[in-house]
Amino acid sequence: MDSAVLLDLLGNENRRRILRLLARRPCYVTEISEYLGVSPKAVIDHLRKLEDAGLVESRVDEQRRKYFSIARNLRLEVNVSPYEFGTKSAYPASRSLDMTRCRYLSLHIEPEEVDEPDDDTPTVEPVDGDAADGENPGGDDVDPDADESLSDLTAELARLETLENELSMAQRWVQGRLTDVMDSLSAAFGERDGRFYAELLAAVANGARTTSAVARRVDASPTVTADGLAQLESEGLLEQVGEEWRLTASE
Amino acid sequence: MDSAVLLDLLGNENRRRILRLLARRPCYVTEISEYLGVSPKAVIDHLRKLEDAGLVESRVDEQRRKYFSIARNLRLEVNVSPYEFGTKSAYPASRSLDMTRCRYLSLHIEPEEVDEPDDDTPTVEPVDGDAADGENPGGDDVDPDADESLSDLTAELARLETLENELSMAQRWVQGRLTDVMDSLSAAFGERDGRFYAELLAAVANGARTTSAVARRVDASPTVTADGLAQLESEGLLEQVGEEWRLTASE
Repeated sequence: MDSAVLLDLLGNENRRRILRLLARRPCYVTEISEYLGVSPKAVIDHLRKLEDAGLVESRVDEQRRKYFSIARNLRLEVNVSPYEFGTKSAYPASRSLDMTRCRYLSLHIEPEEVDEPDDDTPTVEPVDGDAADGENPGGDDVDPDADESLSDLTAELARLETLENELSMAQRWVQGRLTDVMDSLSAAFGERDGRFYAELLAAVANGARTTSAVARRVDASPTVTADGLAQLESEGLLEQVGEEWRLTASE
Repeated sequence: MDSAVLLDLLGNENRRRILRLLARRPCYVTEISEYLGVSPKAVIDHLRKLEDAGLVESRVDEQRRKYFSIARNLRLEVNVSPYEFGTKSAYPASRSLDMTRCRYLSLHIEPEEVDEPDDDTPTVEPVDGDAADGENPGGDDVDPDADESLSDLTAELARLETLENELSMAQRWVQGRLTDVMDSLSAAFGERDGRFYAELLAAVANGARTTSAVARRVDASPTVTADGLAQLESEGLLEQVGEEWRLTASE
């Protein structure tokens, strides 16, 4: 999918509100229209654009009413820097993304052992240990050290470009995996309120701590949210420490 | 920075073209206007919006002409899924992002040992090995296996949410690091054409293989590009295998 098309679509506040709503539950045109305070005609127009781009899909229920939902996973990344304006979007045909076979993924970060750095220093920092040892500000022209530094920098550049691609793939994988887990959780909780319970868990996993924070996240009333959280607590999935909810499994 | 403001800004094709141009080189209003085929008045209007958001900044040169450039690193991520419409943007005050002290970062992926999967299977796949062993489709209500599966799923959910945040931080770190390396390379190559050489290397590192592909990427004429690539080859940073360029350091 073309990133430009996607940015054009997402550049509209009402279309973003529609997507936010549909990410909570499938909706009919009239529901969306009332929720947004926008005419049904305008809603239909937005939905058509979103449907054309494959972001949204529609089904017809038993009463032959058409309802809309988010079609599938999509991820867009935009990088803006003094050297780059890059957009990348991934719109896989199936949920099994690029890393279908990936079972476990982790990030290894090796911290730099340095004294408190001066964050406001405007100088360019050396990119690795070796270059730092050289202490070559890069002024001289045919300095062998400068040459070595150039090849070190080029190697670092290649490593970073590779890493960026890998991270991007990894993030798409995580996104697909999250959707799978939410599907499984919804199914495991059962037809009726499965999705709601799954979203309560996701809200807590994603950093919502208090009942009211969770309620805001899942867009439900505090009472309904409190009942749902209590149910999850009784099933041993959540625990409350003071006012704060957390996943039992997370330690 | 607010993701909504950013999406509104990036939702305009001409603003994206301005950013793409400024990511190649700082420009005056008249240059941008000619390049885009858009009136100076409209360009000034776009630049003002981009400047207000902190994406673009301006300086005045010796001839007292105002020129514009990209202010600093910014990263925007948008996730669309049946359970989420999420936007995240990071706009650090300094280039030393969240992981200033990070020296080395790598991704560890453990592949799943499975037979050729059927990609079109519409069923929800189990999210980890244990759940797969259970083979519980989640129909029964008070099955102890189902309970275990729920807690496994919740643990997986928590792990994925954490991983997503870490990957996001890691990518912002990579982006900052890339800018630092490009700054260092530009400086190491020297004032005059430093940036151009750095961009040639970045284009090759980023997957442009032939001279014409690199020329398109850096938006320079094939002749100028070929000269630059030959210069980098003579410095031992690039090598040509058949028609294809690659970094000497990359093996």
